[in-house]
Amino acid sequence: MIKVSVMYPNSSDAKFDIEYYCKTHIPMVVELLGEALKKGTVDSGLAGAAPEEMPAFIAMGHLIFESVESFQQSFGPHADKIMADIPNFTNTKPQIQISEIKL
Amino acid sequence: MIKVSVMYPNSSDAKFDIEYYCKTHIPMVVELLGEALKKGTVDSGLAGAAPEEMPAFIAMGHLIFESVESFQQSFGPHADKIMADIPNFTNTKPQIQISEIKL
Repeated sequence: MIKVSVMYPNSSDAKFDIEYYCKTHIPMVVELLGEALKKGTVDSGLAGAAPEEMPAFIAMGHLIFESVESFQQSFGPHADKIMADIPNFTNTKPQIQISEIKL
Repeated sequence: MIKVSVMYPNSSDAKFDIEYYCKTHIPMVVELLGEALKKGTVDSGLAGAAPEEMPAFIAMGHLIFESVESFQQSFGPHADKIMADIPNFTNTKPQIQISEIKL
């Protein structure tokens, strides 16, 4: 299984509408990707290692697929529509990473 | 529920022993933290957004707790022992973030 992590960097002027992300963006992604998407999770950044530290990422979305091929085949045809929705909930540019789920 | 993400930055000279991490480090953390730790997951970085791109993080561990207090109370007494094991599997310094699990 693989995980596509979409990580939105934090900064002093970063904005992120977590309600829109959870209630509109992710449901759209779930519908567009269909059965290829095994699970989607959303984290909202609270703090760094110490409670007074700013989190490095204001929010993160993690999408789980059977394989990199399954991600590419399901995401590719809808990439433009999904990416075009990003300015509706943030002024940041996500950092994307594909990982193998080991545990 | 909250998630403590321990993210190990990638670089051209970054080393990470994922076998030691999964088979020795994480089991030690699970045993030390006890029931406070609800779930632990491990991601091994494969690529960035494009297949030829390097992942930003060579590996990530995510630990799930009921609350920030539960994390602090269970992790605090064992922090030194857990942190002292890091050089046994990597030459990188992890970036740590606490997030609220929204979805």
